[in-house]
Amino acid sequence: MDDLFVFSKNGWNPDNRELMLDETLFHSANGSLGVRSAFEEGYPAGYVSIRGQYLNGFYDYVSMPQAEKLFGFVDEKQTMLNVVDTQGIVLKVGDEVFNLFEGKVLEYSRTLDMRAGRSERRSLWRSPKGRTVELAVRRMASFALLPLFTIEYTVRTVDFSGEVTLESGHRGAVGNFSDPNDPRVAAEAFQHILPQAPEWVDGTSVVVSATSRSKLTVASAVRNQLSRPAKVSVSTGADAAFQTFTLTLNQGESVTLTKWTAVCDSVRAVNCRGQALASVSEASSVPLEHWYRKQREYLDDYWAQCSVHVEGDPDLSRAVTYNLYQLLQSVGKDPHANIAAKGLSGEGYEGHYFWDTEIYLLPFFSLNFPALARNLIEFRHTTLDAARENARILGHKKGALFPWRTIMGKECSGYFPSGTAQYHIDADIAYSVIQYHQLTGDLDFLARVGAEILFETARLWMDVGHESGGKFRIHGVTGPDEYTCLVNNNYYTNVMARHNLRWAVRAWKLLEDAGKLAPLAAKLALTAVEVEGFARAAETMLVPYDDERGINPQDDSFLDKPLWDFAGTPKDHYPLLLHYHPLHLYRHQVCKQADTVLAHFLLEDDQDEATVARSFEYYEAVTTHDSSLSTCIFSIVASKLGQTDKAYKYFEETSKLDLLNTHGNTKDGIHAANMGGTYMGIVFGFGGLRLKDDGLHLNPALPAAWSSYDFKVHDRGSRIKVTVDGEGCRLTLEHGPARTLTVYGKQVVLEGALTLARPKR
Amino acid sequence: MDDLFVFSKNGWNPDNRELMLDETLFHSANGSLGVRSAFEEGYPAGYVSIRGQYLNGFYDYVSMPQAEKLFGFVDEKQTMLNVVDTQGIVLKVGDEVFNLFEGKVLEYSRTLDMRAGRSERRSLWRSPKGRTVELAVRRMASFALLPLFTIEYTVRTVDFSGEVTLESGHRGAVGNFSDPNDPRVAAEAFQHILPQAPEWVDGTSVVVSATSRSKLTVASAVRNQLSRPAKVSVSTGADAAFQTFTLTLNQGESVTLTKWTAVCDSVRAVNCRGQALASVSEASSVPLEHWYRKQREYLDDYWAQCSVHVEGDPDLSRAVTYNLYQLLQSVGKDPHANIAAKGLSGEGYEGHYFWDTEIYLLPFFSLNFPALARNLIEFRHTTLDAARENARILGHKKGALFPWRTIMGKECSGYFPSGTAQYHIDADIAYSVIQYHQLTGDLDFLARVGAEILFETARLWMDVGHESGGKFRIHGVTGPDEYTCLVNNNYYTNVMARHNLRWAVRAWKLLEDAGKLAPLAAKLALTAVEVEGFARAAETMLVPYDDERGINPQDDSFLDKPLWDFAGTPKDHYPLLLHYHPLHLYRHQVCKQADTVLAHFLLEDDQDEATVARSFEYYEAVTTHDSSLSTCIFSIVASKLGQTDKAYKYFEETSKLDLLNTHGNTKDGIHAANMGGTYMGIVFGFGGLRLKDDGLHLNPALPAAWSSYDFKVHDRGSRIKVTVDGEGCRLTLEHGPARTLTVYGKQVVLEGALTLARPKR
Repeated sequence: MDDLFVFSKNGWNPDNRELMLDETLFHSANGSLGVRSAFEEGYPAGYVSIRGQYLNGFYDYVSMPQAEKLFGFVDEKQTMLNVVDTQGIVLKVGDEVFNLFEGKVLEYSRTLDMRAGRSERRSLWRSPKGRTVELAVRRMASFALLPLFTIEYTVRTVDFSGEVTLESGHRGAVGNFSDPNDPRVAAEAFQHILPQAPEWVDGTSVVVSATSRSKLTVASAVRNQLSRPAKVSVSTGADAAFQTFTLTLNQGESVTLTKWTAVCDSVRAVNCRGQALASVSEASSVPLEHWYRKQREYLDDYWAQCSVHVEGDPDLSRAVTYNLYQLLQSVGKDPHANIAAKGLSGEGYEGHYFWDTEIYLLPFFSLNFPALARNLIEFRHTTLDAARENARILGHKKGALFPWRTIMGKECSGYFPSGTAQYHIDADIAYSVIQYHQLTGDLDFLARVGAEILFETARLWMDVGHESGGKFRIHGVTGPDEYTCLVNNNYYTNVMARHNLRWAVRAWKLLEDAGKLAPLAAKLALTAVEVEGFARAAETMLVPYDDERGINPQDDSFLDKPLWDFAGTPKDHYPLLLHYHPLHLYRHQVCKQADTVLAHFLLEDDQDEATVARSFEYYEAVTTHDSSLSTCIFSIVASKLGQTDKAYKYFEETSKLDLLNTHGNTKDGIHAANMGGTYMGIVFGFGGLRLKDDGLHLNPALPAAWSSYDFKVHDRGSRIKVTVDGEGCRLTLEHGPARTLTVYGKQVVLEGALTLARPKR
Repeated sequence: MDDLFVFSKNGWNPDNRELMLDETLFHSANGSLGVRSAFEEGYPAGYVSIRGQYLNGFYDYVSMPQAEKLFGFVDEKQTMLNVVDTQGIVLKVGDEVFNLFEGKVLEYSRTLDMRAGRSERRSLWRSPKGRTVELAVRRMASFALLPLFTIEYTVRTVDFSGEVTLESGHRGAVGNFSDPNDPRVAAEAFQHILPQAPEWVDGTSVVVSATSRSKLTVASAVRNQLSRPAKVSVSTGADAAFQTFTLTLNQGESVTLTKWTAVCDSVRAVNCRGQALASVSEASSVPLEHWYRKQREYLDDYWAQCSVHVEGDPDLSRAVTYNLYQLLQSVGKDPHANIAAKGLSGEGYEGHYFWDTEIYLLPFFSLNFPALARNLIEFRHTTLDAARENARILGHKKGALFPWRTIMGKECSGYFPSGTAQYHIDADIAYSVIQYHQLTGDLDFLARVGAEILFETARLWMDVGHESGGKFRIHGVTGPDEYTCLVNNNYYTNVMARHNLRWAVRAWKLLEDAGKLAPLAAKLALTAVEVEGFARAAETMLVPYDDERGINPQDDSFLDKPLWDFAGTPKDHYPLLLHYHPLHLYRHQVCKQADTVLAHFLLEDDQDEATVARSFEYYEAVTTHDSSLSTCIFSIVASKLGQTDKAYKYFEETSKLDLLNTHGNTKDGIHAANMGGTYMGIVFGFGGLRLKDDGLHLNPALPAAWSSYDFKVHDRGSRIKVTVDGEGCRLTLEHGPARTLTVYGKQVVLEGALTLARPKR
């Protein structure tokens, strides 16, 4: 059913919050370039718009003053920039300027077509003087030509004939959004982009801008094409260039302005001005339809690889599709970029990359698009030197500590207790390397990229941890739960570090056996003796366990704390971090998000199922899910424990977080990790997928609300469609050679298709 | 020997660091007003001067930007202001301006006379053109008239006759010192003081200034008097007023300019302009000699009460006297002010009040000057509402949490792990209330001031702590040691909180028995049931003890951490806080300062001496003394343990810290707490003084380097001189009725004098 790939909103709502929300929800991005879905014509005075156009991995430095600066505190961060405004188109009919906030909006809709890869705004508007205009605007960030962003702007005069003017602009002097009252976005307005005067090159306007501090360059080129002859005039300002088209339409006639934009930067191109001009020239040399077709082909392939379909709940099925579409819009397409917490949809978290990538997003790409997954891992690899430097700042003589948040590799966290102290990011990145290796068995990649990450992170654990009483202990770190900071022996950190250490040992042996070890070992001066140390630390790792409760304590002292007074907490005091001092939070048993429960998902074999069940129950009672990284994990572990109804409840919250704006801040951008979590909630959760040494395991269950669902699984080049219904599941080998899998605990060999019944629990 | 009361430096040294150090060492202050000892004529261009004039408790608000602002983070602090410059005097002889950096300095000395209460600069200078001038400048901050600061400026023409010009200035537009490279002083220059245009009132210049944000007012009045007739001219600028005196001196003649300055503020006076004028008028209506006499009388009494004398080491004896003199210069003389960490001698720590007052300084005042001690306690009492508000911000429903650093009562700590999280300040303040009560038995003061502090701090412990496993536990706080933050059951905090809780219970009973309880209990809605809770928490307080080592662990996890790598730490990496990230410090066994050892001093009866001895040895090995609050405590506890040689070594480090500038930052001000620690090192350390329920205990020992020493002890109005030599000690009742004391473990009744032999250990 095609319409599951179309997300739309109908009916005009001039509420500013709604407009800003839609700027995010209908943004156009291709992982390299992102454009928020602002109105070409702008909003009236007094309205707020986050009118952003971003390049993944393009940043400026920003001062970050510390109230009391201690040694090693970060006082400069990177921020993703709004680089240019090529959205602007002003329409005039006769003497009236098109403006939905005046006159009457007869019809209005916004649509995101996730097969076409386009966002569309349609409106039927009657001007104050009674002219009726039909406007259709289609936008596309091209997956085929990454610098390319297009606007197809079609105007029809419904009930009048007369003069129509289209002014299409290109403005260089843009700023980032700032709000002094919201700690989650930049507080102070600052002009990061310093544009040179626009040039005109063969009818294409070009603006080249430098950043204030990072000294990067960005170039944008804009070419306007009109479908009818018109009088054209050009104006050029200090930072802006406009073309104005004037023509006369008879009643019922239409005209289309095609606006070709290319944005290129010095991170990726030596001559970004030349590349921007060349991209616009290449793009506009063929009809827009050509690029629409390319877009469609790209997406047809995408959905063939990874589509998920839920039968019995079209809204939810569409929400899942929406989330998977955003993953594609957000993921960097080269090793210069990663996946920002908000993708390229807004400025929340300033375009920074977090552990979100490795734990919430990479599984999707590793399973379905290994080439994109490799980029993400290579990005970390290219920032290893910065991570080594970060480790030195933190006092570690060896190893690399990846930054908690970054764009180009340097730490951007200004508050270390719930930032830099989250050392688990090292193990998270290692986990993604391991997972990728488990899925691909790519020894060359391991030798070239993965192993260096595994070794350098393992070294860090050796330096941060210490042995005492025969146990390897890790003190003074923060786990994923940001309401509990600077603790000793965080369960998540310790078991993830153990996994990291064990796999550093395995990687050493794998490369040794394959004769690929020597260059890397020499480069790192890593010896077998040091690797034996990794093994010893792994095997003696302290794994906190509470005999009385039969659970894994989140850390050494978590269970000694008093419980948070949930009964006495007003509903409007959530999220707690906006209403309680960190010290007060740290002093109580209260979790912002899955922590031990996340470890139970990622490394389920580290505990028996009964312990996991008790832990789940225990932590569920003290977790607020104030983080958007939480409900998906609780959904997955509930699925694992056979609590499918509960899993479903958590999954619903997860899947519609942005579409329903349940966290209230989607205006600042999508919650990318939660979208990866949506995928995992189905495939790892209900589908029960696990990667083990003996291959893929599946254990699919069906939520009561659904009649069936299906998803894809990739296993070393073979694509398997898994369809789950009330009886069990059906596996269909869509592509590639036969595979051996473990389904419902039994090994099966899949050649064509197989139907398997779900055993009784 | 009088010269033990005179501290001087001889010989000209134009080094800028030395000049700035001397600005501190020779500053003039009376606890209300402080003036750094800059040169009247200034330094040459390129020299740095912290040319400050301060009022205790007078402040402006300053923004304190947080890199990531979480709930409750302080983003505005108070800062002590440089309020005016009335130091300026420019001397011209003929056509040459007096300037020690040109020509030749034939003689030069600076002197602090601690009996006269004056600082003096003398110089014999030959100008580039060969005129020799003798200059003597005496400065005094009057103890008798607190707004008054005087400069007596005498010029003698040694080898020439001619015209002499004296220009005496009064400048309103002054700024605080800033250094963007030093985290311990303000980073950015900001004009806090906004002066109105100067007025002239009967020959006195008046400048009234408002602060930028706190909207306080300060008024300064300056009157110049010349000892000889001269031509006088006046000039008035936008913010400054000058008087210029021109006269002719014959060879060998001298002239004296007496500059009367009064500075008053709106914190203390309704009409500070009127008060400043009146003070200058009152002061200048009698000869300066009158005020010198008053100053001398004040100091004669001061030294009679508290002088300490060491026989056999005049330098050290003088250093001790110097420290006691600075205590008097620093202590606030009314309840509007307290004792800043740097007194009124500089801008380090921005004039903030810390726990230094209660633990390091109040013992001296409670023992010797109860009226001044009362001011200090009343200051805390007047800020109880702000402390209650602070507790609410930190999430506590009841009680008061005093700020870690403040001027007017609101928290100024921008970094909570080693700031606001030092909850022990509540118990420290309670400790000082208890100590004052033990010394005075003043039930009225307890009812009016002390008990409210005890009750509200006790309430806070009830709210921050919790019972678990039958033990009362305090989680998530920081003890005195700032290299170990956010811990559970810090030994110091727990035993000090227990003391606090126990005394809240005792105060309740004392006031109940005295019929003084009802109004306070009603005001606080405090009931016997709640007070029973205090008692229960005290009696079940968890007191960490490590069986294996037989010591009190600093906190629940301190002993599990790896030891700091002292062998691998270069000497120039101390203080560690300037070279290592806090996380790295927090993760190791390393102490900035006395923590458990401090508790062993303050509450010695909480542990047997063998435990104290083992703890002392253990913590000594891991303590860097990077804080100036540490060596004095180690000295005292070493004394207690009979390790007099070690105590002496620590005491020497303590007593000369500022005079020898051993911490390298005395230019920013004296280390007041360390000066109180010097007193305690003798009286509580070598003298073995303790306050117990049965009265004062003494256990005096003699360091091998000394032949004898003496100090005073006050006991409910009686003053006892204690002289200690190799054989034992001699007690002399200098004033007041007979007292019963415990000396060397035996009760004695002192009527006239007693000689007691030291028992063999």
